[in-house]
Amino acid sequence: MTAVSTRQPVAILGGTGALGRGLAARLAAAGHRVTLGSRDADRATASAAELAESLAPAVDVERLLFGAANAEAAATHDVVILATPWDPSGDSIRELADPLAETVVISAINPLGFDVTGPYGLDVVEGSAAEQVAASLPNSRVAAAFHHLSAPSLLKLSHDLSGEDVLVCADDDRARVTALNLAAAVTGTPGIDVGPLRQARQLEPFTAVLIAVNKRYRTRSGLALRHVDRNRASLPEVALS
Amino acid sequence: MTAVSTRQPVAILGGTGALGRGLAARLAAAGHRVTLGSRDADRATASAAELAESLAPAVDVERLLFGAANAEAAATHDVVILATPWDPSGDSIRELADPLAETVVISAINPLGFDVTGPYGLDVVEGSAAEQVAASLPNSRVAAAFHHLSAPSLLKLSHDLSGEDVLVCADDDRARVTALNLAAAVTGTPGIDVGPLRQARQLEPFTAVLIAVNKRYRTRSGLALRHVDRNRASLPEVALS
Repeated sequence: MTAVSTRQPVAILGGTGALGRGLAARLAAAGHRVTLGSRDADRATASAAELAESLAPAVDVERLLFGAANAEAAATHDVVILATPWDPSGDSIRELADPLAETVVISAINPLGFDVTGPYGLDVVEGSAAEQVAASLPNSRVAAAFHHLSAPSLLKLSHDLSGEDVLVCADDDRARVTALNLAAAVTGTPGIDVGPLRQARQLEPFTAVLIAVNKRYRTRSGLALRHVDRNRASLPEVALS
Repeated sequence: MTAVSTRQPVAILGGTGALGRGLAARLAAAGHRVTLGSRDADRATASAAELAESLAPAVDVERLLFGAANAEAAATHDVVILATPWDPSGDSIRELADPLAETVVISAINPLGFDVTGPYGLDVVEGSAAEQVAASLPNSRVAAAFHHLSAPSLLKLSHDLSGEDVLVCADDDRARVTALNLAAAVTGTPGIDVGPLRQARQLEPFTAVLIAVNKRYRTRSGLALRHVDRNRASLPEVALS
């Protein structure tokens, strides 16, 4: 793997939600310039300011957290994380196809349902939300990651996440390597490459398992893989700007 | 949770396969009397003798490992683990409905496919193999567990499995508690209750993620959940014979 910049600016669409703000907090704390995207630009800006204030004085992220409308955030970044709610129609993603062309797009979308028996994975026509994203954004470079991190744990910067693994899948090597590196910025540990994008069919609904465990054991559980030497993967050589 | 016998005799159907033998080795090493079931009784007996010999002299399991035809093993045990190959028709399970009536049946079945892109979870009409088992055995007590343990690691008794988690799901409380306790015998750590049987839809295909990681990182990966106090679950009171 070639040396890469670990300080790429990152936009997080759906960034005013809990997972989006949590990822933003960790990325900003690691020195990334982060733009929270929302349908409403004013709301995004307010959310970014609020988040910066909540993290101070532990971390000075005031000049690293911004807000913008989703389309503007998408158009002005080379790396975009989707932390948007699951949209079965795909319309909200498809309308960003132009601004997201050539962009690395990392889906953290979890299509989950809840009923009297608890959380469960929704049926997705395309197989997974990440595959729906890839179908909706034919000119983007799509990966999936960050499904299993607890939003409250992300937001509490003192909470050590280095024992939790970010599982990454992608069909595009540049997207894969970008997500693996961003995982290191978020948790302190590089992500684990679990293969092609269709593995998102396993990653996304596994979040239902963690949520069920959280309720039964009154905790915020996380996922880890054992016996994986993160430097041993045969990763592609990808030059990242 | 009430005190339970940890030395219940256990039958493992499909016990001559790699996962079956691995579970048998660990359960016998923990003092359980284990019967390997196979379609062919002679093959089961030979496999049990071979396994006992391969584990000696580290563990004296000679009087704890036996072989029998699947139907006989099913009829003579209160606890049965299914380590059989995935059978989309369900016929091989359904024909054991009578001998398995009232029995705790723990499905470790992983319906996986492999193609040029790697391993993937197969589509299952009933949602998961465990749900197919429950539908095929209406008078049995069904749980799902043991999907994620590596067979070679199980067979190598010196390999410490205590850092890996066995995730258990069930709609029947007696089956759930039995599986959680057997997990402790197998790995040294009690299993984690992840809720209703339909969670098997997540547990089974997640094995495809581990297999893909094994290839990429040249390892035998395992699964662990972080931040779960295994004594904190609100488990039902179940008196086990």
